[in-house]
Amino acid sequence: MDESRLVERQVGSRVVYRGNVLTLRVDDVELPSGKRSRREVVEHPGGVAVVAVDRDGSVILVRQYRYPVRSALWEIPAGKLDPGEDPRECAARELEEETGYRAAVLEEVVPFYTSPGFCDEVLHLFFAKGLTAGEDRPEEDEIIETRRVRRAGLDEMIARGEIRDGKTLLGLFVAMSRGLI
Amino acid sequence: MDESRLVERQVGSRVVYRGNVLTLRVDDVELPSGKRSRREVVEHPGGVAVVAVDRDGSVILVRQYRYPVRSALWEIPAGKLDPGEDPRECAARELEEETGYRAAVLEEVVPFYTSPGFCDEVLHLFFAKGLTAGEDRPEEDEIIETRRVRRAGLDEMIARGEIRDGKTLLGLFVAMSRGLI
Repeated sequence: MDESRLVERQVGSRVVYRGNVLTLRVDDVELPSGKRSRREVVEHPGGVAVVAVDRDGSVILVRQYRYPVRSALWEIPAGKLDPGEDPRECAARELEEETGYRAAVLEEVVPFYTSPGFCDEVLHLFFAKGLTAGEDRPEEDEIIETRRVRRAGLDEMIARGEIRDGKTLLGLFVAMSRGLI
Repeated sequence: MDESRLVERQVGSRVVYRGNVLTLRVDDVELPSGKRSRREVVEHPGGVAVVAVDRDGSVILVRQYRYPVRSALWEIPAGKLDPGEDPRECAARELEEETGYRAAVLEEVVPFYTSPGFCDEVLHLFFAKGLTAGEDRPEEDEIIETRRVRRAGLDEMIARGEIRDGKTLLGLFVAMSRGLI
């Protein structure tokens, strides 16, 4: 099917809220049928997520409180893009801020949409190798716990449902499929 | 680290927007340090996503226009939970609505958060087997293209960057890791 047959055309738009992390827009659209409808769109700056694999095959996980889901989640290091920031620089920055590690190699694996039904957020997934330990420099009031976990431990955490973050599950499964961990 | 040391406590909350798909809330929170901060939270009803595998090992993909990212994406069948709806029933319903297929077996694989930094959306990932073809019954104005793709074709689509939806990538990688496709 030709993509143009699917397009929903913007015919109106208003910003409902402009915040620190996100902007909420409500647009009026014309559907391919000619009918009108409304679309609620969350604008997000996008970000990066990093599967950092150490020489012994362990992966660096971080744990932090995620207020929207009222729990502390184990995740791969990740963060939002600053305005105009290159995803690769962002990946290096977030890895070092959250874990203290620097990576000799940062390989971009795949960009993906986290929830394209209502949000334009794109995450760039990276593999980080050749790690050198340093000191983490979390942002003010960012409390982060770090853990190094080998493949068997990751398998256990996944089987027990202890990893509930989508980007983290995706990053780990892609790394496993490539024999990286 | 004790999770209670990480908790951000709600001290104020206001609803900024209540829409059809999502609600936007801005909360004031007290951080573990005692300082105050603000959290922008998108409330979402949650949903399901279904890796439906046919007898020949092919997976059913659907393509629809995703207005927030201004493109038509190839995805696994998915949809939002109706209020009070059981995720398994939702998975059966969405699979049939979007593809016409009914599944003899629906196995829940893993629930995950799509973007827990700002949104409470949970997706329940299912594997569907024992498919029986029928007629799709898309919702009004829901234009959906369907394709059956075998493992080699999926590998190609992933390698070419033609699958850019997070839940779809996760579902396919999990299914591959279990030898399902």
